[in-house]
Amino acid sequence: MDELFKKIKINPKDLQLYKIAFSHSSYANEHRAKQDYERLEFLGDAVLDLVVADYLYSNKKENEGEMTKVRASYVCENALYEYSMSLGLNNYIKVGHGEEKEGGKFKKAIVADIFEALIGAIYLDLGYATARKTVLNIIVPYIENPDIVFFSDYKSALQEYVQTSQQSLHYELIKEEGPAHNKRFTVQVKIDGIVYGTGVSGSKKEAEQEAAKIALDKLAI
Amino acid sequence: MDELFKKIKINPKDLQLYKIAFSHSSYANEHRAKQDYERLEFLGDAVLDLVVADYLYSNKKENEGEMTKVRASYVCENALYEYSMSLGLNNYIKVGHGEEKEGGKFKKAIVADIFEALIGAIYLDLGYATARKTVLNIIVPYIENPDIVFFSDYKSALQEYVQTSQQSLHYELIKEEGPAHNKRFTVQVKIDGIVYGTGVSGSKKEAEQEAAKIALDKLAI
Repeated sequence: MDELFKKIKINPKDLQLYKIAFSHSSYANEHRAKQDYERLEFLGDAVLDLVVADYLYSNKKENEGEMTKVRASYVCENALYEYSMSLGLNNYIKVGHGEEKEGGKFKKAIVADIFEALIGAIYLDLGYATARKTVLNIIVPYIENPDIVFFSDYKSALQEYVQTSQQSLHYELIKEEGPAHNKRFTVQVKIDGIVYGTGVSGSKKEAEQEAAKIALDKLAI
Repeated sequence: MDELFKKIKINPKDLQLYKIAFSHSSYANEHRAKQDYERLEFLGDAVLDLVVADYLYSNKKENEGEMTKVRASYVCENALYEYSMSLGLNNYIKVGHGEEKEGGKFKKAIVADIFEALIGAIYLDLGYATARKTVLNIIVPYIENPDIVFFSDYKSALQEYVQTSQQSLHYELIKEEGPAHNKRFTVQVKIDGIVYGTGVSGSKKEAEQEAAKIALDKLAI
C-alpha cells in the first residue's frame, strides 16, 4: 500500500489498522480472528462529517440547513465512491469468495465504505489533524468545482428536472440475464421517448440510478 | 461566564464565539449584526458524534450497528438537555422578547441546542483535542453509569415495556390552562389504571413524554 500512502501523503504507524480498513466482512469471515472494516467505517463516517462541517462553517456563509444539505451531498454513497475510485482504493479491497462482484467490479457500496474506513484508520493511527488534512486534500477540489454535484439519488434529481421542463420520464427494463443469485439488469431511461442513458447492475434499482446519472450528465445538470 | 469556564476546565481565547453559542435566533434578531448559535450547533453536533464514536470504538466491543444505537441515545435531545442542565448552561441563554418560555423555563430544545453550540465554540476556539477532552469529561460518567439510560423517545420505551409485561397503557389529559399562545397541558400516564407519572408542558406531546419518563424512572427501566 506504499503507493497509496504516498498519494495521500501520510506516514502510517500502525499498518494493521489499514489492513482492517480494506477487509470486507466476507473476507474477515474466511480468515478467522481478523476484523472487518465496519467499525472503522463507523468512525471514519463521523470524521468526514466533522471535517466537512468545519470546512463549510469556516468557508461558506450558509445557514445550518443549507450546510446540512451541502454536506449530505459530499458524503453520500456516490461521492464516497468517486473519492475512493479517484485514489484507486478499489485495488486494495479484500472480499471473501462468497462476495459476488458485479460485472467483475466490487459493489459500489463496498468501494464507498472503504473510503470511510481508511479515514477512520488514519484518525486512529495519526490523529484528527492528519485525518482532517487528508480529507480536505481529497474533498475540497470537489466542493470548490462548480461543475461537480453529487446526488445521493440521481433518479430524484432527474425527476425534478423533468418536472420543471414538463417532459415525460420513463424507465424500461431492457434485459435481465444471469442465474438467480447473480442477475444482471439493463435499464434504459427515456425522456420524451428518447433514450438518454443505459444502466447495468445487479439490482434493477441500481441500474435505474446509473441510467439516470448518465442522463443527468448528458443534460449537464 | 468565568464560572462556567472553570467548571469545564477551559481557557477560552475568543470570547465572542461563546457569546454567539448562547444567543438564540430570537435574541440575535433583536440585536442586529449579531449571529445566533445555529451554525455553531451544527458544528458541535458533528464534534459530539465523532468524540462519542471514538470513545465507543476504543472502549467497547460493540459492532457498528450497536455503536450507532448507543451513540444515538447519548446525543439525543433528552441527553443533551441533561448535560446542559448539569452544567447550568441554561443560566447563560439569551432569547428575544418574542421567545416564550414554558413555565418560566427555556424550551427543552433550546437548552439542548446550547450544549452542542458550546462544544462547537470550544472546537473552533481551542481545537479538537480540547473539545474532545471537554466532551469526554461530561459524557463518560453518563455512558459508564449503568443506571442512566437516555431514550430519545420515552413513550416508545414505556410502550415497549408494557407490551412485554402485557399491561395496559393509557395517557389522560388532566388539565389544559393558559391563553392560546401559552397553553399548559397536564397529562397523566396510567398503567393498568394506576397513575405512574404526571407531566406538565406547553405541548401535549411533550407533557406525555415527561409523564412517560417519570413512569420509566418508577419502574426502574
